[in-house]
Amino acid sequence: MIELNPIYVDRVVTAALEEDIGAGDITTALTVPDHVNAVGVILAKEAGVIAGLEVAQAVFQTVDLCVTIDGRAKDGDTVPAGGQIAIVSGNARAILTGERVALNFLQRMSGIATFTSRFVEQIAHTKAKIIDTRKTTPGLRALEKYAVRLGGGHNHRFGLFDGILIKDNHIAAAGSVRQAVEAAKANAPHTLRVEVEVTNLDQLHEAIAAGADAVLLDNMPRELMRQAVELGQGKVIFEASGGVTLANVREIAETGVDLISVGALTHSAAALNISLELR
Amino acid sequence: MIELNPIYVDRVVTAALEEDIGAGDITTALTVPDHVNAVGVILAKEAGVIAGLEVAQAVFQTVDLCVTIDGRAKDGDTVPAGGQIAIVSGNARAILTGERVALNFLQRMSGIATFTSRFVEQIAHTKAKIIDTRKTTPGLRALEKYAVRLGGGHNHRFGLFDGILIKDNHIAAAGSVRQAVEAAKANAPHTLRVEVEVTNLDQLHEAIAAGADAVLLDNMPRELMRQAVELGQGKVIFEASGGVTLANVREIAETGVDLISVGALTHSAAALNISLELR
Amino acid sequence: MIELNPIYVDRVVTAALEEDIGAGDITTALTVPDHVNAVGVILAKEAGVIAGLEVAQAVFQTVDLCVTIDGRAKDGDTVPAGGQIAIVSGNARAILTGERVALNFLQRMSGIATFTSRFVEQIAHTKAKIIDTRKTTPGLRALEKYAVRLGGGHNHRFGLFDGILIKDNHIAAAGSVRQAVEAAKANAPHTLRVEVEVTNLDQLHEAIAAGADAVLLDNMPRELMRQAVELGQGKVIFEASGGVTLANVREIAETGVDLISVGALTHSAAALNISLELR
Amino acid sequence: MIELNPIYVDRVVTAALEEDIGAGDITTALTVPDHVNAVGVILAKEAGVIAGLEVAQAVFQTVDLCVTIDGRAKDGDTVPAGGQIAIVSGNARAILTGERVALNFLQRMSGIATFTSRFVEQIAHTKAKIIDTRKTTPGLRALEKYAVRLGGGHNHRFGLFDGILIKDNHIAAAGSVRQAVEAAKANAPHTLRVEVEVTNLDQLHEAIAAGADAVLLDNMPRELMRQAVELGQGKVIFEASGGVTLANVREIAETGVDLISVGALTHSAAALNISLELR
Amino acid sequence: MIELNPIYVDRVVTAALEEDIGAGDITTALTVPDHVNAVGVILAKEAGVIAGLEVAQAVFQTVDLCVTIDGRAKDGDTVPAGGQIAIVSGNARAILTGERVALNFLQRMSGIATFTSRFVEQIAHTKAKIIDTRKTTPGLRALEKYAVRLGGGHNHRFGLFDGILIKDNHIAAAGSVRQAVEAAKANAPHTLRVEVEVTNLDQLHEAIAAGADAVLLDNMPRELMRQAVELGQGKVIFEASGGVTLANVREIAETGVDLISVGALTHSAAALNISLELR
Amino acid sequence: MIELNPIYVDRVVTAALEEDIGAGDITTALTVPDHVNAVGVILAKEAGVIAGLEVAQAVFQTVDLCVTIDGRAKDGDTVPAGGQIAIVSGNARAILTGERVALNFLQRMSGIATFTSRFVEQIAHTKAKIIDTRKTTPGLRALEKYAVRLGGGHNHRFGLFDGILIKDNHIAAAGSVRQAVEAAKANAPHTLRVEVEVTNLDQLHEAIAAGADAVLLDNMPRELMRQAVELGQGKVIFEASGGVTLANVREIAETGVDLISVGALTHSAAALNISLELR
Repeated sequence: MIELNPIYVDRVVTAALEEDIGAGDITTALTVPDHVNAVGVILAKEAGVIAGLEVAQAVFQTVDLCVTIDGRAKDGDTVPAGGQIAIVSGNARAILTGERVALNFLQRMSGIATFTSRFVEQIAHTKAKIIDTRKTTPGLRALEKYAVRLGGGHNHRFGLFDGILIKDNHIAAAGSVRQAVEAAKANAPHTLRVEVEVTNLDQLHEAIAAGADAVLLDNMPRELMRQAVELGQGKVIFEASGGVTLANVREIAETGVDLISVGALTHSAAALNISLELR
Repeated sequence: MIELNPIYVDRVVTAALEEDIGAGDITTALTVPDHVNAVGVILAKEAGVIAGLEVAQAVFQTVDLCVTIDGRAKDGDTVPAGGQIAIVSGNARAILTGERVALNFLQRMSGIATFTSRFVEQIAHTKAKIIDTRKTTPGLRALEKYAVRLGGGHNHRFGLFDGILIKDNHIAAAGSVRQAVEAAKANAPHTLRVEVEVTNLDQLHEAIAAGADAVLLDNMPRELMRQAVELGQGKVIFEASGGVTLANVREIAETGVDLISVGALTHSAAALNISLELR
Repeated sequence: MIELNPIYVDRVVTAALEEDIGAGDITTALTVPDHVNAVGVILAKEAGVIAGLEVAQAVFQTVDLCVTIDGRAKDGDTVPAGGQIAIVSGNARAILTGERVALNFLQRMSGIATFTSRFVEQIAHTKAKIIDTRKTTPGLRALEKYAVRLGGGHNHRFGLFDGILIKDNHIAAAGSVRQAVEAAKANAPHTLRVEVEVTNLDQLHEAIAAGADAVLLDNMPRELMRQAVELGQGKVIFEASGGVTLANVREIAETGVDLISVGALTHSAAALNISLELR
Repeated sequence: MIELNPIYVDRVVTAALEEDIGAGDITTALTVPDHVNAVGVILAKEAGVIAGLEVAQAVFQTVDLCVTIDGRAKDGDTVPAGGQIAIVSGNARAILTGERVALNFLQRMSGIATFTSRFVEQIAHTKAKIIDTRKTTPGLRALEKYAVRLGGGHNHRFGLFDGILIKDNHIAAAGSVRQAVEAAKANAPHTLRVEVEVTNLDQLHEAIAAGADAVLLDNMPRELMRQAVELGQGKVIFEASGGVTLANVREIAETGVDLISVGALTHSAAALNISLELR
Repeated sequence: MIELNPIYVDRVVTAALEEDIGAGDITTALTVPDHVNAVGVILAKEAGVIAGLEVAQAVFQTVDLCVTIDGRAKDGDTVPAGGQIAIVSGNARAILTGERVALNFLQRMSGIATFTSRFVEQIAHTKAKIIDTRKTTPGLRALEKYAVRLGGGHNHRFGLFDGILIKDNHIAAAGSVRQAVEAAKANAPHTLRVEVEVTNLDQLHEAIAAGADAVLLDNMPRELMRQAVELGQGKVIFEASGGVTLANVREIAETGVDLISVGALTHSAAALNISLELR
Repeated sequence: MIELNPIYVDRVVTAALEEDIGAGDITTALTVPDHVNAVGVILAKEAGVIAGLEVAQAVFQTVDLCVTIDGRAKDGDTVPAGGQIAIVSGNARAILTGERVALNFLQRMSGIATFTSRFVEQIAHTKAKIIDTRKTTPGLRALEKYAVRLGGGHNHRFGLFDGILIKDNHIAAAGSVRQAVEAAKANAPHTLRVEVEVTNLDQLHEAIAAGADAVLLDNMPRELMRQAVELGQGKVIFEASGGVTLANVREIAETGVDLISVGALTHSAAALNISLELR
């Protein structure tokens, strides 16, 4: 499992706290006495896969180095409704000041992990993998892709720089599938595979002939998808995408594709309902 | 309408592009000839309220100052499925490189505006207003609260610094509703109102007696909510919150509360399906 | 008391040290042997209210984590001329390198706290409060407003985002006091009060009728101020401003206003004379 | 004249606007119609030396690139009470939003320039120069030292890195004036002079013998100062410091010293009263 | 050709100018009259491949937007000793202030491009490509890898995130070549190939059997390298590395490897001698 | 010895790690088990002067606070080929992830220190000092000038702000050597010396007469250099520059100049070959 880069976590957490605290947590300052300690329980109000505990911990400890978090679950665990996720102990002001930002991270990341796990369950009987896309929240991509992994999914490229994916618009500009793939293969770093979008079997043949390593079947009818896989199996990696839902993902996986990419994992996952309650 | 702060937009857009482009858009560089121009149409694939055009424009112009965006709709407009949102013209590489980041902003913001507008429609016959919460995406709060406004909603406080909201945990620490409200009123900046959470009519009496300007009725049964409003009308502002959905928001509004806060507006809105197609 | 946000303190202190140290403290490097320890006393060379000890501590500990500060006074204490404020112990180079930046913060903040306390003393027999303005040093507003609080003053809004203050120029643009106040009240977040500047009793009537929560009496003659207060008492909060000095603040307070804002607290306070002496 | 570094101005101005505007200028957004233009006059409410027009211009143009500033005076000019400093034209919202930050810079910088010019006038009949210190506002040193130059003063070193100034504490650590000066001269970059603090004539002899380029006479009695200057004239540069006021600066200058450093120029100058009035 | 990301160029150039200019270019301010224009010629004092003109242009235009650069060569061109690279026109102060930083970028980047081109020439008769490594200057990797491309080389991965390269230490930790490769292939993003270091033919067999896409032959004797290539040709990509010099690169290329990585391209290229002369 | 500013080291190290790690060290994550410890030896593969151990330590401890570095040499030590520089102990993933960045700093800095020491050895029998220039890597100047000091060299000015160096272009703009020097001396901070480039004996006379503190002899023939030194000895400091190599530096030093500046120290030093080997 690729862990989060701690330098990145620090940067994101600090920015989130600056956004929320600004000139100060006025309510807490005016109503909660200084130096009172408290213990809070982070609870799952609905069942789900937990993601982001390390980030939540960084939030509280950025507010006050002495707040401790005792995990009752760990990232990737499935917790039932009502289940305890962690115990937060320390200065009451610090816990109240950090609460919302910590939960905002936890809820979003756990929502993504949980949503991903539902897709993964649907296709567990196939060889296909669920993968994410670049349709992520600006600035939080690393957190969201980490949550996808925790939910049992895998990652597509992180950005424009660590994967080659030739789409319809690139093909139009290059002239043809063949021309686009050949141009890419001629100059691509050897560490990267070349993936190309195809819309019919002729383009698939062309892609394979030009040396594509993977093909993207975007919004392709199931039957055509099945034929494509049969035709190219063992020669290229197949990624299906476009309009994938919990209702149709099983059917798509059963066409034999290797990968199914789902933008909704990150752009439309609802937050998991998580709260912090002081004991 | 409070507009977005352009300094903030620049900062957020630059960070998003650095995250996505990193060392370069390899695919575009390898397959699209330099200095080719293109025209793209930004399309709503489903009906919704548009939000974020200014941000999308900043994305393209940060990649290449010479890309132009010609809005066919403007922020806050409702666009039908298939409707054109804007025309993007300029260098083909720049358009392809900026596409995903621009759409990520547009889709998220338009999703929030659209979701908000559904709540607003439900209660148009009442005096209640839909407001947001601090349950926003870390780092993007200003964008998301702007989208809420475009959807017809209003904003609760932006952070811990521009509003006083005394919740159950603060009350517990302060000793009582009365003590908490009095402490807040004694030292709060005069520009800020004091709002306090109450869970029954006794606490409501106590809050009013102590001089609270607004009360939060969190997860309160409808009938009790109605009694509270009757009792305090004209003396305090009433905000209802907790478990608000499109199914129950009308009923809540009809209790006579002034404000209904909905965390889901920002933490669980699905993205609006928007795409960019090169002509 | 609203404390300083430690994330903000770190950021400001780091920037100040980068500005002063740059490529290195050449003098100290060339003349003071490494690893020599020293003890320094921070002394008030004139009497005043101390503010900024936490910031000074952050300065020394950013230079060298092992320097310790032992406070002989604490923020908000009044120290006589010659009084000890704190003892600084640790590596001699680190103390000498951090000295000037630490004192620059302490002197400025203590100067503001001390100047504020003089105004507060003058009006202690009235119900009025001394408040600050946005006439602060760019980048240091949170430090300066904290110093005002330590001097016994209160804070006006922190920025343009956490308070509504309709001034003459806004009124001119909106058309009238009534139109401006109504526009603000229609769309303002419910957490914020609406304050408006009035220059005569007619405008005061208009403001009250339109629902203003507070009025600003800017440079108003004392007698008119008194009449205004009488007229609006209990209906609005009164803030007096403009040309307030130690010589006239008592007279202004005795008109019955609630708040007296003084720009000079932050824009024209002389530094308190504080020095660090190695023992 | 050393101009301000525009990269630095951009950075400082952007930070100041982020601090003040935050999530938005609510008052202006709610009361001033969009797209209304306005013309404002920046006026000196009291006579003084103007400093910071370029910074004020950067403020307005960061808010809105289309606001123009037409200077009626230029940096370094003396303007009478009531005199026009500049005309600001453009979008009314942008002018109102940028007003306070622009004035905060202008008032502080002009206050320093004006205060400096008073010292300079006092000693115009001597060869002495008024210089500043490192007792500046954290983060704004370059602006403040620029204001000193505009007021007719000169600059001491900018930070710990561009000047060597051996003070009493360094001497104590090094063992003696001679040892400290020799250590510094042995390893100092050849671009920098070596200055050392002396408290009596013996130390002055020692400093000169060791090769010091300049000596600092800190809080030295006038008569002793005169003797020192006589003794070392032509051999070293003399800087007087400590307790310099408008009342005693003339007398100090007449001792024959070359430089008189005044911390109060930057740490205790009152702001110049400047306002912006919409026509 | 993958171009430089302009956001990155802006950031790097701004930081470089802040480092060099700091509080101001004192010499130029004191000796060159304001508003004098000048024309400078950027000259190659020795023959080489030019790289970094776009960066140099960004330097001058960050100092003063009105300075223009008229390229007499373009990036990737070979220029003879004494050849003109560009003409810089505009404010004399701006040109003198930006000169050193602009040349520092140009000299380093052109040095790398030139050094790379020498390696490329040596092996032009083979199918091998020269590639770079991660042995780059911290913070300038994108510039240096761009210079390698301009010199006719290709890029290895940009960082730890866009390529999988299993080295001896990873193999030791994983247990064996087979275990390491299988672990990587099981969870690697499908956009990335898996490369592994092998030191003998047994490991090569193992790597191929486990599905490695590329192998790294580090410091392998020529004869063994030749045997490896023969054995694995068509099954894996071969990268040779370790101790590659201009003297031995031809011999290495003739073993039939696909890629030869040379750390010295970026860590030990001498700067190309380039100067700016005012006409 | 002027040490590195730890705030600067943190900033540079964090940026370097963000550049290299990005979204994560995929190879290590996929092949090295979590929580395995390792011990690595940092070895000099060739003899040289070590520089940058503190920076390397900051790299590893930014990745993982618990990694320890046990120095077997210290900065400035000469280590033979094969000599141990330091032992790194801790989590195996952290060591592998930080390895390349740590070595990139160490190799570059040690390369500069080693190259400097060769120049210093050549002229040990003279009074001349080797000094660096501003021809440094953008963003890393402080590290590179520190490495020069460790190699026995001295530093010229750090940037445009801490030294006055009037070159041919400035002279042309000012009118003459005399005019340029006088303009500089009239307004320069007293902490800085004035250095001017001269190309013949007439200009040298002019410079001395105008009060220059130092003169730069750029690319001057040896014999003329000798005459100049004879003529100005005791009156000005002499710096020789231009085309200095290990082959001619001794001859230049023997002309009697005080300083010899060598741009190649920082712009063309080859990296010292240093590696990390896990035991």
